[in-house]
Amino acid sequence: MEQQFKEISNWMTEQNIDFTFLTSTDNVFYFSNFYSDPHERLLALLLFRNEEPILVCPSMEKNDAVNAGWKFDIIGYSDIENPWENIQQKVAEKLPSVKKIAVEKDHLNVNRWESIHTAFPSIEQILSAEEKINQLRMVKTEKELTIIKEACKWADYAIEIGCSELAEGKTEMQVLAAIEYELKKQGIAQMSFSTMVLTGKNGASPHGTPGDTPIQKGDLVLFDLGVVVDGYCSDITRTVAFGDINEEQKQIYDTVLKAQLAAIDASKPGVACSVIDLAARNIISEAGYGDYFPHRLGHGLGISVHEFPSLTETNSLLLKEGMVYTIEPGIYVPNIAGVRIEDDVYVTKNGVEILTKFPKELQIIK
Amino acid sequence: MEQQFKEISNWMTEQNIDFTFLTSTDNVFYFSNFYSDPHERLLALLLFRNEEPILVCPSMEKNDAVNAGWKFDIIGYSDIENPWENIQQKVAEKLPSVKKIAVEKDHLNVNRWESIHTAFPSIEQILSAEEKINQLRMVKTEKELTIIKEACKWADYAIEIGCSELAEGKTEMQVLAAIEYELKKQGIAQMSFSTMVLTGKNGASPHGTPGDTPIQKGDLVLFDLGVVVDGYCSDITRTVAFGDINEEQKQIYDTVLKAQLAAIDASKPGVACSVIDLAARNIISEAGYGDYFPHRLGHGLGISVHEFPSLTETNSLLLKEGMVYTIEPGIYVPNIAGVRIEDDVYVTKNGVEILTKFPKELQIIK
Repeated sequence: MEQQFKEISNWMTEQNIDFTFLTSTDNVFYFSNFYSDPHERLLALLLFRNEEPILVCPSMEKNDAVNAGWKFDIIGYSDIENPWENIQQKVAEKLPSVKKIAVEKDHLNVNRWESIHTAFPSIEQILSAEEKINQLRMVKTEKELTIIKEACKWADYAIEIGCSELAEGKTEMQVLAAIEYELKKQGIAQMSFSTMVLTGKNGASPHGTPGDTPIQKGDLVLFDLGVVVDGYCSDITRTVAFGDINEEQKQIYDTVLKAQLAAIDASKPGVACSVIDLAARNIISEAGYGDYFPHRLGHGLGISVHEFPSLTETNSLLLKEGMVYTIEPGIYVPNIAGVRIEDDVYVTKNGVEILTKFPKELQIIK
Repeated sequence: MEQQFKEISNWMTEQNIDFTFLTSTDNVFYFSNFYSDPHERLLALLLFRNEEPILVCPSMEKNDAVNAGWKFDIIGYSDIENPWENIQQKVAEKLPSVKKIAVEKDHLNVNRWESIHTAFPSIEQILSAEEKINQLRMVKTEKELTIIKEACKWADYAIEIGCSELAEGKTEMQVLAAIEYELKKQGIAQMSFSTMVLTGKNGASPHGTPGDTPIQKGDLVLFDLGVVVDGYCSDITRTVAFGDINEEQKQIYDTVLKAQLAAIDASKPGVACSVIDLAARNIISEAGYGDYFPHRLGHGLGISVHEFPSLTETNSLLLKEGMVYTIEPGIYVPNIAGVRIEDDVYVTKNGVEILTKFPKELQIIK
C-alpha cells in the first residue's frame, strides 16, 4: 500500500493536484484495504500530495475500517448528517487553497460532482484520476498475484463441482446452487459476479440468465463464474458436453479452443491488446463464425472483475509484465451451440502464466 | 408500464423537458422491464414527451431486451463502437432541437455527463429526473405489491431454514451457505444483497461480515437477508437466541421489539417519516441505548433494496397509501449483543400490512 500511495502522490505532484477524491468501492479498497459498499451513502478517500489521507464513511462502519487496517483520519457521519461540511473543514486544515483536484469521472455521480464544486468554490480544474489509477492497478504486485492465484484455484474447484453435479433433468439453478453451496460452506463469502450455468438454447446467449432449463443428453453446458478472495476476483468459463454432442457442436468447440490457445500464444510483454484479440478473432472468422463472436476477447482482472487492460481488436495498449487478464473467445449460434472458454492469465517476462487450470479439452460428462 | 410512461411524459410536458436520459439498472428496468447490469458498458433509456422511447444497450443484449418485452427502438453497440453518435442521430430524427433534458444526477457519472454535453451542445439546462421517478416508484401498483409479497414469503422461508440449520460449532458461513442453497435450488437466482449471518461479537456490528465464527450456546444469531423475485426485493432481519441468553441480552431484545412494534403502530398515511423513526428511537433512548442505535429506522423497498422513502428522524415526507418500506431498529452493544428486527410493510388506508411474517417473539433455538 505504501508504494501505491507514493506513486499517486508523485503523480499529484507532477500534475500539481491538491487532492484526489476517490469514491468507488474498488479504488477505495485499493488504497485503504477497507472494502465497503454503503449503497447510496457516501464512501470516499481523499489523497494528498504530502499530507496523510482521509477516509469518509458512515459512522457505523468506522470500526470496520480500523479493523481492516486503516490508520489515518476518518470522517464518519450518521444518516442525518451531511458529511460535506466536515470534508471541507478537514481539507482546509491541510491545504490553504484548492485549485486543482482529481476525481473518478467514470464513477463520481453528478450530484457529488456538484457538491464538490459547492464545497470548494476555488476549484479551477478537475482531472480524471482514473487513467493513472488504472495504470497502477493494471500491474499486479507479488502479493496481489498470490491472492488472485488463490481465487483462481477456487474457480477451478467450482467448475469441478459443477461437472460432478450434472445429471439428466437437473435444472441450471440446481447445479448453480450446488456449486455456490460447496464454496460458501468452505468460507467463500462472495462470487465475482452472478454465477452462470447455461444449457441448451440458453447457452447460446453470451449473457444468458440461468433458470429452470433442465439438462439433457447431447447438450452443452456453459459455466461462467468467479470467486472473490481477500478482495480479488477470478473469472473462468468452461463449456462441457453432457453426453455425446453432434459434429457441428464439436466443430464450434474446437474452433473456440484453437482461438483461445492462439491468443495465449500471442500474449507477451510488448504486444498490443488488439493483436491478442485478433489472434483469436481471425481464427473464428476464418472458420466462418465471425458474426457469432460478438464481444471483446477479454478484460483485466483484479479488485474489479472487469478492469484494465481491455482486450479489443482496436486497443493499441501494449502488454506489460504483471498484468492479469482474461482470454475468453466464444461462439454463440442460436439453437445450435454456445461455447466460451476462458482463462485468467498473468503476463511474465516472456509470455503468460495460465492461472486457471481446469482442463480445456472437451470434457464429455456421461 | 403504460401508466408509468404517461406519468413521466406528463411531467416532462409540464417541465418542458425534451428528453429524459436514464442510466441506472433499476430505473431502466422500471420503465422497460429489461433488467441488465452491463458493468462499465452503457445501458440507457431515452424517454420523450410524445415520441416512442429508445433503449441503448450492448448489441449482444438486444435479444434479451426483446425477450423481456421491449417493443421499441434499440440502439445496440459492440465493444469497439461508441454509441453516442448513434444516440445523437436518433434523437435528431425525433426532435428538431434539444434545450432541456433530465438525467439521474445520483447515478450518471461525470464522463457520461460530459458526453451528453458534447453530443447535444444546444442543451441549456439539465434537471434531475430522480425526484419525479422516486415519487412514482415509491407508490407501488397492485402488480408490484403482489411480487413483493412473494419475495417476502421467500425471505420468511429463508429465516426458517437459517434457524433449522443452527448447531453448536457451525460457522456463520456454513449456515449462510445452507440458506442460499435451499433458495437457489428452488429457483431463486438472486439475493437482494449479501446475506448476513452474524453471531457472537460479530452480531454487534450493524454492517458486519459473515465469516468463520462458530455458533456457541448462549449466543444471539442475527440473520439479515432478502430475495429478488421478478426484479423486486424483500429484506428481513431476525435475531434469535441459540440456547439461553442472559438478562441483558434479553432486555436489549425486548427493547428492540418494543421499538419495532411502536413504529409499526405509528405507521399510516399522512404521518411523517420522522414520526415513525422517532416512535422507535425514543423507546430505545429511554431504555438507555440511544447511542447504540446508529442508523435510520428503515428505507423504501422495491426494485432497489434501498429506495424512497427514507425513514430518518428528520425526514418530513408524509406516508402515502401504497408505499413499501422496512422497519428495522437495532441495538449494538460491543461484546454484549447485537439485535435488529426488521419487517417489510405496505401502507394501507388506515395503517400498514406487515409483509414479512416470521415470528418476532424471541425464538430460543435449542
